[in-house]
Amino acid sequence: MVRKSPQVGTPAGMRVLNQRAVLDRLRRGGPATRPQVAKDTGLSKPTVGQALLDLEQHGLVRPIGRTTSGPGRSAMVYEPNPAAGHVLGIDIGRQRIRVAVADLAGSVIARVDERNRCRSAGSLVRTVRELAERTVADAGLAMADLVVKVVGTPGVPDPRGRALTHAPNLPGWERRGLLDDLEAQLGPDLLVENDANLAAVGERAYGAARDVDVFVCVMVGTGIGMGIVVDGRLFRGAHGAAGEIGYLPWGAPSEVDDNGRGRLEAAAAAESVVALAKQHGIPTAKSARDVFLLAKSGDERALRAVRDEAERLAFVVASVAAVIDPELVVLGGGIGQNTELLAEPMAQALRRMTPLAPRIATGELGDGAVLSGAIAMGLRSARDLVFDRRIPVTL
Amino acid sequence: MVRKSPQVGTPAGMRVLNQRAVLDRLRRGGPATRPQVAKDTGLSKPTVGQALLDLEQHGLVRPIGRTTSGPGRSAMVYEPNPAAGHVLGIDIGRQRIRVAVADLAGSVIARVDERNRCRSAGSLVRTVRELAERTVADAGLAMADLVVKVVGTPGVPDPRGRALTHAPNLPGWERRGLLDDLEAQLGPDLLVENDANLAAVGERAYGAARDVDVFVCVMVGTGIGMGIVVDGRLFRGAHGAAGEIGYLPWGAPSEVDDNGRGRLEAAAAAESVVALAKQHGIPTAKSARDVFLLAKSGDERALRAVRDEAERLAFVVASVAAVIDPELVVLGGGIGQNTELLAEPMAQALRRMTPLAPRIATGELGDGAVLSGAIAMGLRSARDLVFDRRIPVTL
Repeated sequence: MVRKSPQVGTPAGMRVLNQRAVLDRLRRGGPATRPQVAKDTGLSKPTVGQALLDLEQHGLVRPIGRTTSGPGRSAMVYEPNPAAGHVLGIDIGRQRIRVAVADLAGSVIARVDERNRCRSAGSLVRTVRELAERTVADAGLAMADLVVKVVGTPGVPDPRGRALTHAPNLPGWERRGLLDDLEAQLGPDLLVENDANLAAVGERAYGAARDVDVFVCVMVGTGIGMGIVVDGRLFRGAHGAAGEIGYLPWGAPSEVDDNGRGRLEAAAAAESVVALAKQHGIPTAKSARDVFLLAKSGDERALRAVRDEAERLAFVVASVAAVIDPELVVLGGGIGQNTELLAEPMAQALRRMTPLAPRIATGELGDGAVLSGAIAMGLRSARDLVFDRRIPVTL
Repeated sequence: MVRKSPQVGTPAGMRVLNQRAVLDRLRRGGPATRPQVAKDTGLSKPTVGQALLDLEQHGLVRPIGRTTSGPGRSAMVYEPNPAAGHVLGIDIGRQRIRVAVADLAGSVIARVDERNRCRSAGSLVRTVRELAERTVADAGLAMADLVVKVVGTPGVPDPRGRALTHAPNLPGWERRGLLDDLEAQLGPDLLVENDANLAAVGERAYGAARDVDVFVCVMVGTGIGMGIVVDGRLFRGAHGAAGEIGYLPWGAPSEVDDNGRGRLEAAAAAESVVALAKQHGIPTAKSARDVFLLAKSGDERALRAVRDEAERLAFVVASVAAVIDPELVVLGGGIGQNTELLAEPMAQALRRMTPLAPRIATGELGDGAVLSGAIAMGLRSARDLVFDRRIPVTL
């Protein structure tokens, strides 16, 4: 997705730059009249008028009515046209697959949320495609109408091997060429991003981390992962594996387990909560969800299991704090979002472990964090792309 | 140190911008003639000639001879004047205090390296001032001639309390107002920076990490610390405490010790090497240096102590890799630089601990890493400052 730059200095290039400035003003500052846009951009009223005309003709802005109050003549009010393009977001999780279509204003116009019953990579890729097509049809669109598609998944996309690495929780998901398979099913203009990274993008755009400069989003569910955002941008590390905190060394120096899971992930993700509950005398514990429900009802054994889990998560937070000193840690995921039970024992453990404890908050987007992040990331690209595609650059 | 911007659009402003462009070309591209500079900057030869004249008059460039080879008339060759300004670098360590003065070309022209015998913050601040004055006198300069002074120290500068936090290894060094005391003794234009951060800056500028985008420099000596450099810039975290890896949670969840040291620091810095040697049957071990010397001579007990230390450092590297995925870890400090003994057992431990092991290298700057980083950081500021001070901006 390389952007063309208009040729500055030619009249056609200037005209494109002016259109871009007017559109950016409407996107950032909200609906406005021609004189308001002229005042905010420093362009002349005739130039703004011409740019609005061009943009409207290309379907990028639309009039939404006339000013009525105040003295003087009423003026037309313009806004960016939300229907100028659409983006698709997909969250592929071990438990569920979530898909949404949003317009350029970020409004979700169709959404699907299904259980993930797939047992192979092939069937998962096909299921993702079917769900995507269904959601797009629900939105009254065709796949070809989508400007950008963003897929969130466990693991680290490796552009060279066209595969995902470090994704042991989805069967077959690390196979070579998987990224090509996804593109074959979903079409071009596809971005594949780590799910915890997208959750961080989502919480930064719409959730608990708005305007926070240095923060991390720790997701604890079937697996464990983290997204790091610095000054509004994802920090991915040298090979895309920044935030793969499942691989934090923890406890006795045993081997990485056969499944490729890290020691910390084996100790702190959902299965371990069940194991802890069994240790504390609940042999019937089936799922982490059960254990948290029991703890909520006051069961002492479940509360002890939750306290152990909180201690392990405190270890994660203390480790992350010692390395990158974030201002805020947002907790999410099926387990992480139980902060009413986890917060107090985590805070106690952190006081023992480190003088660098950051602020901890629950994610505000809940189960929708990854999907919201996928939409937010898609919108960033799509807003540029629709402009570049609709406005022909005449040289 | 706010920089003035010349007023673009006025003839005087244009003249300053041209001077700046010519000086930047000489700094980046090396010595050059007027036609070479004209070609590289796109400015006309008369404009370059005028800018060179102005810069020479203000002492910012100097002629160094004439071209001799090739056809045509010989031309004068210019370079940035190294004597246009000087910077002072200071490395305050628990064991030693190092001071250097460098000219704008980065050549060190005077240097002092003394044992740190101070037992209080007051005496340390005074000693630093005396050593600074002596070094500056050795360079044939006065303190007032220094454009920028950069001090490297353990701890995290807290601009609000005008103090250093997390500096338990220097007695009294966390006292309130310490940054003001340093400035009172050393004068204005003073930057105080964490020592491991400066070591990272030094290794990036002159050492093992040239051109590496995402790397960390782990310093292990009396204490333990880390500097993180991303795309050539220090990453300091939200409160300046990024890289305070002494606070990594490690081993049994005991309290942070009374001295304010972190658990990992207590387990992996110099004292712990002595303690490990005692555990392995060397009751006479006095210093980490002794233990490494013994190990080098093949003493099995010392080698076991070194292996334990390597395991702890592998824990640090594995933790850092899981959080920020650096391309390279540079090891430095009195202990860290013993890579001929540490590298192999660290690599073994890392293979057990993590699939994310980064490349590990020994620092190339040895004991001088912090000082080199102080000079490198000082030069960055000083090169801008001497220009802004010597070239009057006429509005």
